[in-house]
Amino acid sequence: MRLIDPRTGIEVLDRDECLQLLRSQFVGRLAVVEDGTPMILPVNYAMDDDTIVFRTAEGTKFDAAVRGGPVAFEIDHTDPVYQIGWSVVVTGHARLITEEDDLERARALPLRPWSDHAKSNWVGIHAEGATGRRIVSIHHAEG
Amino acid sequence: MRLIDPRTGIEVLDRDECLQLLRSQFVGRLAVVEDGTPMILPVNYAMDDDTIVFRTAEGTKFDAAVRGGPVAFEIDHTDPVYQIGWSVVVTGHARLITEEDDLERARALPLRPWSDHAKSNWVGIHAEGATGRRIVSIHHAEG
Repeated sequence: MRLIDPRTGIEVLDRDECLQLLRSQFVGRLAVVEDGTPMILPVNYAMDDDTIVFRTAEGTKFDAAVRGGPVAFEIDHTDPVYQIGWSVVVTGHARLITEEDDLERARALPLRPWSDHAKSNWVGIHAEGATGRRIVSIHHAEG
Repeated sequence: MRLIDPRTGIEVLDRDECLQLLRSQFVGRLAVVEDGTPMILPVNYAMDDDTIVFRTAEGTKFDAAVRGGPVAFEIDHTDPVYQIGWSVVVTGHARLITEEDDLERARALPLRPWSDHAKSNWVGIHAEGATGRRIVSIHHAEG
Protein backbone atom coordinates (compact mmCIF):
# COMPACT_ATOMS: atom_id res chain seq x y z
CA MET A 1 0.00 0.00 0.00
CA ARG A 2 1.28 3.45 -0.91
CA LEU A 3 1.43 5.95 1.92
CA ILE A 4 1.20 9.59 0.96
CA ASP A 5 2.19 12.26 3.48
CA PRO A 6 -0.94 14.44 3.66
CA ARG A 7 1.05 17.59 4.49
CA THR A 8 3.46 17.44 1.56
CA GLY A 9 1.98 15.00 -0.92
CA ILE A 10 5.21 13.01 -0.78
CA GLU A 11 5.10 9.21 -0.84
CA VAL A 12 6.42 7.71 2.38
CA LEU A 13 8.57 4.58 1.98
CA ASP A 14 8.29 1.78 4.52
CA ARG A 15 11.25 0.17 6.27
CA ASP A 16 11.52 -2.75 3.83
CA GLU A 17 11.64 -0.42 0.86
CA CYS A 18 14.26 1.73 2.61
CA LEU A 19 16.45 -1.30 3.27
CA GLN A 20 16.04 -2.46 -0.34
CA LEU A 21 17.21 0.95 -1.57
CA LEU A 22 20.13 0.88 0.89
CA ARG A 23 21.20 -2.45 -0.61
CA SER A 24 21.06 -0.99 -4.13
CA GLN A 25 23.57 1.82 -3.51
CA PHE A 26 27.22 2.06 -2.49
CA VAL A 27 27.82 5.71 -1.57
CA GLY A 28 25.97 7.50 1.23
CA ARG A 29 26.50 10.51 3.45
CA LEU A 30 27.18 10.21 7.13
CA ALA A 31 26.33 13.01 9.57
CA VAL A 32 27.87 13.13 13.02
CA VAL A 33 28.00 15.74 15.77
CA GLU A 34 31.29 17.15 16.98
CA ASP A 35 31.22 19.72 19.79
CA GLY A 36 27.61 20.52 18.95
CA THR A 37 28.40 21.10 15.27
CA PRO A 38 27.23 18.78 12.49
CA MET A 39 29.78 17.15 10.23
CA ILE A 40 28.84 15.38 7.02
CA LEU A 41 30.97 13.19 4.79
CA PRO A 42 30.33 10.82 1.90
CA VAL A 43 31.28 7.22 2.61
CA ASN A 44 31.53 4.03 0.59
CA TYR A 45 29.39 1.43 2.29
CA ALA A 46 27.84 -2.00 1.96
CA MET A 47 24.96 -3.61 3.81
CA ASP A 48 25.36 -6.57 6.15
CA ASP A 49 21.70 -7.53 6.63
CA ASP A 50 20.26 -4.29 8.05
CA THR A 51 23.59 -2.86 9.18
CA ILE A 52 25.47 -0.21 7.20
CA VAL A 53 29.16 -1.17 7.10
CA PHE A 54 32.02 1.11 6.11
CA ARG A 55 35.60 1.94 6.99
CA THR A 56 37.17 4.95 8.65
CA ALA A 57 40.74 6.09 9.05
CA GLU A 58 41.80 5.33 12.60
CA GLY A 59 42.65 8.28 14.78
CA THR A 60 40.98 10.97 12.69
CA LYS A 61 38.56 13.47 14.18
CA PHE A 62 35.88 11.96 12.00
CA ASP A 63 36.61 8.48 13.26
CA ALA A 64 36.26 9.66 16.86
CA ALA A 65 33.00 11.47 16.16
CA VAL A 66 31.58 8.48 14.32
CA ARG A 67 32.20 6.24 17.28
CA GLY A 68 31.11 8.74 19.88
CA GLY A 69 27.40 9.10 19.54
CA PRO A 70 24.28 9.19 17.42
CA VAL A 71 24.67 9.34 13.65
CA ALA A 72 22.49 9.83 10.61
CA PHE A 73 23.11 8.28 7.22
CA GLU A 74 21.51 9.33 3.96
CA ILE A 75 21.22 8.07 0.39
CA ASP A 76 19.24 9.64 -2.43
CA HIS A 77 18.64 9.68 -6.13
CA THR A 78 17.25 12.49 -8.23
CA ASP A 79 16.28 12.70 -11.87
CA PRO A 80 16.36 16.35 -12.96
CA VAL A 81 14.61 15.73 -16.27
CA TYR A 82 11.52 14.05 -14.85
CA GLN A 83 11.77 15.87 -11.50
CA ILE A 84 11.46 12.63 -9.59
CA GLY A 85 13.59 11.37 -6.76
CA TRP A 86 13.80 9.49 -3.53
CA SER A 87 15.79 9.63 -0.33
CA VAL A 88 16.36 7.34 2.64
CA VAL A 89 17.62 8.45 6.04
CA VAL A 90 18.89 6.03 8.68
CA THR A 91 19.36 7.01 12.30
CA GLY A 92 21.30 4.97 14.78
CA HIS A 93 24.58 4.59 16.58
CA ALA A 94 27.89 3.69 15.03
CA ARG A 95 29.95 1.00 16.67
CA LEU A 96 33.40 -0.29 15.96
CA ILE A 97 33.33 -3.84 14.58
CA THR A 98 35.75 -5.89 16.67
CA GLU A 99 34.40 -9.44 16.92
CA GLU A 100 36.30 -11.75 14.59
CA ASP A 101 33.07 -13.24 13.17
CA ASP A 102 31.72 -9.79 12.37
CA LEU A 103 35.05 -8.68 10.85
CA GLU A 104 35.12 -11.78 8.69
CA ARG A 105 31.68 -10.95 7.35
CA ALA A 106 32.60 -7.29 6.88
CA ARG A 107 35.71 -8.20 4.87
CA ALA A 108 33.60 -10.36 2.57
CA LEU A 109 31.26 -7.49 1.68
CA PRO A 110 31.49 -5.87 -1.76
CA LEU A 111 33.09 -2.82 -0.23
CA ARG A 112 35.77 -1.27 -2.38
CA PRO A 113 37.52 1.71 -0.83
CA TRP A 114 38.36 4.08 -3.67
CA SER A 115 41.27 5.59 -1.83
CA ASP A 116 42.90 5.90 1.56
CA HIS A 117 44.75 2.71 2.25
CA ALA A 118 44.91 3.72 5.94
CA LYS A 119 41.21 3.09 6.56
CA SER A 120 41.75 0.39 9.11
CA ASN A 121 38.61 0.67 11.26
CA TRP A 122 35.44 -1.21 10.35
CA VAL A 123 32.32 0.54 11.55
CA GLY A 124 28.73 -0.67 11.62
CA ILE A 125 25.48 1.28 11.97
CA HIS A 126 22.48 -0.88 12.69
CA ALA A 127 19.52 0.82 11.02
CA GLU A 128 17.51 1.49 14.15
CA GLY A 129 15.37 3.98 12.28
CA ALA A 130 14.94 4.01 8.51
CA THR A 131 12.64 6.50 6.84
CA GLY A 132 12.29 7.31 3.19
CA ARG A 133 10.28 9.36 0.80
CA ARG A 134 9.72 9.49 -2.89
CA ILE A 135 8.62 12.41 -5.01
CA VAL A 136 6.69 10.93 -7.89
CA SER A 137 5.81 14.16 -9.64
CA ILE A 138 5.45 17.76 -8.64
CA HIS A 139 1.81 17.64 -9.70
CA HIS A 140 0.96 14.89 -7.22
CA ALA A 141 2.27 17.13 -4.48
CA GLU A 142 -0.41 19.74 -4.98
CA GLY A 143 -3.51 18.86 -3.00
CA MET B 1 48.23 24.14 -8.42
CA ARG B 2 46.96 20.75 -7.36
CA LEU B 3 47.06 20.02 -3.64
CA ILE B 4 47.28 16.39 -2.65
CA ASP B 5 46.51 15.38 0.94
CA PRO B 6 49.68 13.51 1.98
CA ARG B 7 47.80 11.25 4.41
CA THR B 8 45.20 9.95 1.99
CA GLY B 9 46.45 10.78 -1.48
CA ILE B 10 43.21 12.64 -2.13
CA GLU B 11 43.26 15.90 -4.11
CA VAL B 12 42.16 18.86 -2.01
CA LEU B 13 39.93 21.39 -3.77
CA ASP B 14 40.32 25.08 -3.04
CA ARG B 15 37.47 27.42 -2.12
CA ASP B 16 36.95 28.71 -5.67
CA GLU B 17 36.68 25.20 -7.05
CA CYS B 18 34.23 24.29 -4.26
CA LEU B 19 32.03 27.28 -5.08
CA GLN B 20 32.15 26.45 -8.78
CA LEU B 21 30.97 22.92 -8.05
CA LEU B 22 28.24 24.25 -5.75
CA ARG B 23 26.99 26.39 -8.63
CA SER B 24 26.90 23.37 -10.94
CA GLN B 25 24.50 21.30 -8.82
CA PHE B 26 20.94 21.69 -7.57
CA VAL B 27 20.49 19.00 -4.89
CA GLY B 28 22.57 18.83 -1.71
CA ARG B 29 22.26 17.36 1.76
CA LEU B 30 21.85 19.48 4.82
CA ALA B 31 22.92 18.27 8.27
CA VAL B 32 21.64 19.94 11.41
CA VAL B 33 21.76 19.07 15.09
CA GLU B 34 18.59 18.52 17.09
CA ASP B 35 18.90 17.72 20.80
CA GLY B 36 22.46 16.54 20.22
CA THR B 37 21.42 14.20 17.40
CA PRO B 38 22.35 14.77 13.77
CA MET B 39 19.60 15.07 11.17
CA ILE B 40 20.28 14.99 7.46
CA LEU B 41 17.95 15.79 4.58
CA PRO B 42 18.33 16.38 0.85
CA VAL B 43 17.36 19.87 -0.28
CA ASN B 44 16.91 21.62 -3.61
CA TYR B 45 19.10 24.67 -3.61
CA ALA B 46 20.56 27.44 -5.73
CA MET B 47 23.54 29.70 -5.15
CA ASP B 48 23.25 33.44 -4.60
CA ASP B 49 26.91 34.43 -4.93
CA ASP B 50 28.51 32.32 -2.18
CA THR B 51 25.30 31.74 -0.24
CA ILE B 52 23.32 28.49 -0.49
CA VAL B 53 19.62 29.35 -0.78
CA PHE B 54 16.74 26.91 -0.29
CA ARG B 55 13.26 26.72 1.14
CA THR B 56 11.88 24.98 4.20
CA ALA B 57 8.38 24.26 5.38
CA GLU B 58 7.55 26.70 8.13
CA GLY B 59 6.89 25.26 11.55
CA THR B 60 8.48 21.86 10.98
CA LYS B 61 11.05 20.39 13.34
CA PHE B 62 13.53 20.57 10.52
CA ASP B 63 12.84 24.23 9.91
CA ALA B 64 13.43 25.01 13.59
CA ALA B 65 16.70 23.04 13.66
CA VAL B 66 17.92 24.68 10.46
CA ARG B 67 17.47 28.12 11.92
CA GLY B 68 18.80 27.25 15.34
CA GLY B 69 22.48 26.70 14.95
CA PRO B 70 25.46 25.49 12.95
CA VAL B 71 24.79 23.47 9.82
CA ALA B 72 26.77 21.47 7.30
CA PHE B 73 25.88 21.13 3.63
CA GLU B 74 27.26 18.53 1.24
CA ILE B 75 27.25 17.81 -2.49
CA ASP B 76 29.06 15.02 -4.26
CA HIS B 77 29.40 13.11 -7.47
CA THR B 78 30.69 9.59 -7.97
CA ASP B 79 31.39 7.55 -11.06
CA PRO B 80 31.31 3.86 -10.15
CA VAL B 81 32.81 2.70 -13.43
CA TYR B 82 35.95 4.81 -13.29
CA GLN B 83 36.00 4.94 -9.48
CA ILE B 84 36.37 8.68 -9.48
CA GLY B 85 34.43 11.23 -7.53
CA TRP B 86 34.41 14.49 -5.67
CA SER B 87 32.64 16.01 -2.71
CA VAL B 88 32.25 19.50 -1.26
CA VAL B 89 31.27 20.28 2.32
CA VAL B 90 30.14 23.70 3.46
CA THR B 91 29.94 24.70 7.10
CA GLY B 92 28.13 27.75 8.36
CA HIS B 93 25.00 29.05 9.93
CA ALA B 94 21.56 29.11 8.39
CA ARG B 95 19.57 32.28 8.61
CA LEU B 96 16.03 33.10 7.59
CA ILE B 97 15.95 35.47 4.62
CA THR B 98 13.62 38.34 5.57
CA GLU B 99 14.94 41.50 3.89
CA GLU B 100 12.81 42.35 0.85
CA ASP B 101 15.90 42.88 -1.35
CA ASP B 102 17.26 39.48 -0.40
CA LEU B 103 13.87 37.82 -0.90
CA GLU B 104 13.57 39.41 -4.33
CA ARG B 105 16.93 37.95 -5.32
CA ALA B 106 16.05 34.57 -3.81
CA ARG B 107 12.78 34.40 -5.77
CA ALA B 108 14.68 35.07 -8.99
CA LEU B 109 17.01 32.09 -8.47
CA PRO B 110 16.57 28.98 -10.63
CA LEU B 111 15.13 27.15 -7.64
CA ARG B 112 12.34 24.78 -8.53
CA PRO B 113 10.76 23.03 -5.58
CA TRP B 114 9.75 19.56 -6.75
CA SER B 115 7.03 19.23 -4.18
CA ASP B 116 5.65 20.71 -0.99
CA HIS B 117 3.77 23.85 -1.84
CA ALA B 118 3.90 24.82 1.85
CA LYS B 119 7.64 25.62 1.77
CA SER B 120 7.24 29.24 2.64
CA ASN B 121 10.53 30.02 4.39
CA TRP B 122 13.59 31.11 2.44
CA VAL B 123 16.84 30.15 4.12
CA GLY B 124 20.39 31.16 3.32
CA ILE B 125 23.69 29.60 4.36
CA HIS B 126 26.70 31.77 3.68
CA ALA B 127 29.57 29.40 2.90
CA GLU B 128 31.83 30.36 5.81
CA GLY B 129 33.87 27.23 5.29
CA ALA B 130 34.03 25.31 2.02
CA THR B 131 36.23 22.26 1.67
CA GLY B 132 36.36 19.73 -1.10
CA ARG B 133 38.22 16.70 -2.27
CA ARG B 134 38.51 14.72 -5.43
CA ILE B 135 39.52 11.12 -5.86
CA VAL B 136 41.18 10.90 -9.23
CA SER B 137 41.98 7.21 -9.19
CA ILE B 138 42.52 4.61 -6.54
CA HIS B 139 46.04 4.10 -7.82
CA HIS B 140 47.00 7.72 -7.21
CA ALA B 141 45.93 7.28 -3.60
CA GLU B 142 48.63 4.75 -2.82
CA GLY B 143 51.75 6.52 -1.81
